[in-house]
Amino acid sequence: MTDAKKRLAVLGSTGSIGRQTLEIVRALPNRFDIVGLAGGSNIALLQEQVKEFKPEFVYYQQGKEHPGGDYKFLSMEEMAAHPDVDTVVIATSGSSGLEPTLAAVKAGKNIALANKESLVTAGQIIMDEAKLNGARIIPIDSEHSAIWQCLEGERTKPAQIILTASGGPFRGYSSAQLEEVTAEQALKHPSWQMGGKVTIDSATLINKGLEVIEAHWLFGIPFDNIRVLIHPQSIIHSIVEFIDGSAKAQLGCPDMRLPIQYALTYPERLSNPELPRINWGSISHLDFEEPDLDTFPCLKLAIEAGKEGGTFPVVLCAADEVAVELFLSHRIKFSGIASLIEQILEQHQPIARPTIADIATADAWARDNAIRLALGDTPC
Amino acid sequence: MTDAKKRLAVLGSTGSIGRQTLEIVRALPNRFDIVGLAGGSNIALLQEQVKEFKPEFVYYQQGKEHPGGDYKFLSMEEMAAHPDVDTVVIATSGSSGLEPTLAAVKAGKNIALANKESLVTAGQIIMDEAKLNGARIIPIDSEHSAIWQCLEGERTKPAQIILTASGGPFRGYSSAQLEEVTAEQALKHPSWQMGGKVTIDSATLINKGLEVIEAHWLFGIPFDNIRVLIHPQSIIHSIVEFIDGSAKAQLGCPDMRLPIQYALTYPERLSNPELPRINWGSISHLDFEEPDLDTFPCLKLAIEAGKEGGTFPVVLCAADEVAVELFLSHRIKFSGIASLIEQILEQHQPIARPTIADIATADAWARDNAIRLALGDTPC
Repeated sequence: MTDAKKRLAVLGSTGSIGRQTLEIVRALPNRFDIVGLAGGSNIALLQEQVKEFKPEFVYYQQGKEHPGGDYKFLSMEEMAAHPDVDTVVIATSGSSGLEPTLAAVKAGKNIALANKESLVTAGQIIMDEAKLNGARIIPIDSEHSAIWQCLEGERTKPAQIILTASGGPFRGYSSAQLEEVTAEQALKHPSWQMGGKVTIDSATLINKGLEVIEAHWLFGIPFDNIRVLIHPQSIIHSIVEFIDGSAKAQLGCPDMRLPIQYALTYPERLSNPELPRINWGSISHLDFEEPDLDTFPCLKLAIEAGKEGGTFPVVLCAADEVAVELFLSHRIKFSGIASLIEQILEQHQPIARPTIADIATADAWARDNAIRLALGDTPC
Repeated sequence: MTDAKKRLAVLGSTGSIGRQTLEIVRALPNRFDIVGLAGGSNIALLQEQVKEFKPEFVYYQQGKEHPGGDYKFLSMEEMAAHPDVDTVVIATSGSSGLEPTLAAVKAGKNIALANKESLVTAGQIIMDEAKLNGARIIPIDSEHSAIWQCLEGERTKPAQIILTASGGPFRGYSSAQLEEVTAEQALKHPSWQMGGKVTIDSATLINKGLEVIEAHWLFGIPFDNIRVLIHPQSIIHSIVEFIDGSAKAQLGCPDMRLPIQYALTYPERLSNPELPRINWGSISHLDFEEPDLDTFPCLKLAIEAGKEGGTFPVVLCAADEVAVELFLSHRIKFSGIASLIEQILEQHQPIARPTIADIATADAWARDNAIRLALGDTPC
C-alpha cells in the first residue's frame, strides 16, 4: 500500500485511451491526483475534464478557443517533465507522442505508454534514456501489458513472445474482397472499442507489426523470437514462452480499462467493480490461426521495417498515418494503404542510428511523399 | 545462478513421477546430486537407479529382495529430514506420502510435492508446520505448478483460481455408458501419461476434486473461489484470476517433466532440449466446458468433503484408494467407485481438527469399511 496518491499527467486526455484513463481515476479516487491534462482539438471535452479534475497544468492545441479554468498552460513536454508529476500517461496518437515520451524518460518519470509510435520510431533512443534516467515505461497496449504481466517475477529472458491479434473485421477476407471494403466497415472492430486510427490499423494488421517492433524495444527481444498469432476472441492478450518449454498467457475481457488500470496501479492490483470479469462458463473455445501475410501485407511490411531498423519504422508510421487519413476520407482504397506504405518504404534512403532530428526529417519526408504519391494516384 | 548442486532425495523413485524426476536429473547433471532414493516394490528398477546415481541413502519395501550397492538404509521419514538432503521430491502415491512430507516440512526442507494425499488429508497440519519451520512446498502437479507460476511476482491474493481438467477418457459419456466401461479403457488417458491410480482418478474426476482441496491449502484460497473447467487439450494447465479482472494462465505440452523440472530448478528456469515445446502454429483451438457433476459424482463428493473438512478428506482418499484397486482388479464397476466412496463418507463420524493419529485412524476405518462394503456387494 502506498499512502501518497500518484500524481498523473494525462497527455491525450480527450482521446479514447485518455477518457478511459480518467474513468479509472474516477473509480479509484483515493489513488490518483490529476496534475496535468493535455487535450487535442476537442476543447469542449477538455473543458469538462478541467472542471472536474482541476489540474494544475493544461495543454490544448492553439486556436481560437481555449478551455476556461484556473490552471497554468504548459506544453506537453514541459508537463511530462514537471517535478509535480510522477506518472505520465502518454495517450496521444501518432507521431505527436514522441517528444513528450522523450521528455518524460529524460526526467526519469513513470510512464504509462499507450502511444505506439514513440517506441516504434525511436525505440533505441527512448530505451537508452529510460535506462540512463531510471524511467519506467509500463505499457498500456493490451498485448504489451500482457507480456509485462507474464514476465513479472520471472528471472530469465523469454524464449519467445507470441503477440495475439484479433485479425480485425476482415479476417478471412480474400484480397479481392478487401478491394471493396469501406471505411465504415473497417471502423467496426469485432472485439475492441478503440479510436479510428488504431481501428483501421487493426484492420490492415499494421497495428500488430508496430506492436512487434514495440515489443522488441520494450522487452529487448530479437525479432526472430516474436511471432504473431491470430486469436479472434481477443481474450488471450499475448503469450510468453520460457526456455524450459513452459508458457504464460494473460487473459481478460477486451476492455482497455484493464491494462490502463494495471499500468496506473502497478505493482499493485486493485479491485474495481466497474471493470468486466471473464465469464469462464461462457468460453467454449479460444481459436488461433497463423496470420495471412499475403492478404494483409501491412503486417509483413511493418515487421520487415522493424528488422531493417534505422529510419524505416519512422517512414512506415508516417506513411501509414497519411494512408489511413486518406482511406478514412475516401480518397484511397483499403488496399491502397499497404501499397502506399510499400512505395514510400521502397523510395526511402535510410539512416542507420537516427537522432531525433533525423527521425523528424524522415517523418516529414515520408508524409510529403505519401501525400504527393497518393493524390497523384487518385482524383481529388 | 547457484553454484552448489541441489541435494535431492527422491521418494517414490521407481514410480512414474520418480522416473521422470531422474530423467530431469540426467538432463541437468551439473545441477543435482541424488542423495537418497526410496523405491516401492520394483526392486529391479531401484537397483538400476542405485547403480546409476550412487545415493548415500536408500529405502526399499522390506521383503526378501533388496537392491545391492553401497548405501545406508533409511526410512523415508529419516531420509526426508536428513541434513545431507536439501530438496525432497515426494513422488510416492496415496497415503504413504503423508509421513515423509510431514518429516520434510518439520525439517524445513524444500519440498517438490507430487503426492496429493498429504495435503488433502493433512493440509492444515502440513501448512502450519511448513510456515513454522520455513519449509517451501513447490507443487509438481501440473495444475498447481501452473498456479504457482501465475502467482510468481504477484503481490495480491487471487480473486479466483480456475483448475483445468482434461475430462479424462470418458468425457461426454452418459451415466449409462459409464456403467459398461472397463479398467483397460479407463487406463487410456487421452492426453497425460501417468501412473494407474492417478489415471483412474482422472477418469472419475475425483483427481480434480483432490486438486481443489490441495489448491485450497497450498495457496490459502477459499473453496468458493476455486472452480474447475474442463479443457480437453490439456495445454492450459490452470488459470488465476486477479482482483482487477486480469487473469493469467500457464500453458505447456502435457508432459510431467515440465512441472517437475520447474519445481526442481525454481526460482530459475533452465533450458532442457529434451522437454517438448508447444507448436503454436498447430493449435487451432482450445476448448472449455463446465464439468458434468451428475455424471461424474466423484468430483462433487471430493469438493464437498474438502468444504466439510476435518477427517472427511481422509476418508475420501482412503475409500478412493480401495475403490480404485477393486475397480482395477475387476471387482467393482466404474460407477461403483463413486457409490462406494459416497457410502463411506455417509457413514463417517468426522473429527473437526484431526491430529496425525486421528488421520491414521480415519484412514484405517475407511479402508476396512470400504473393503467390507464392496466385497459384501460383489462375489469374491
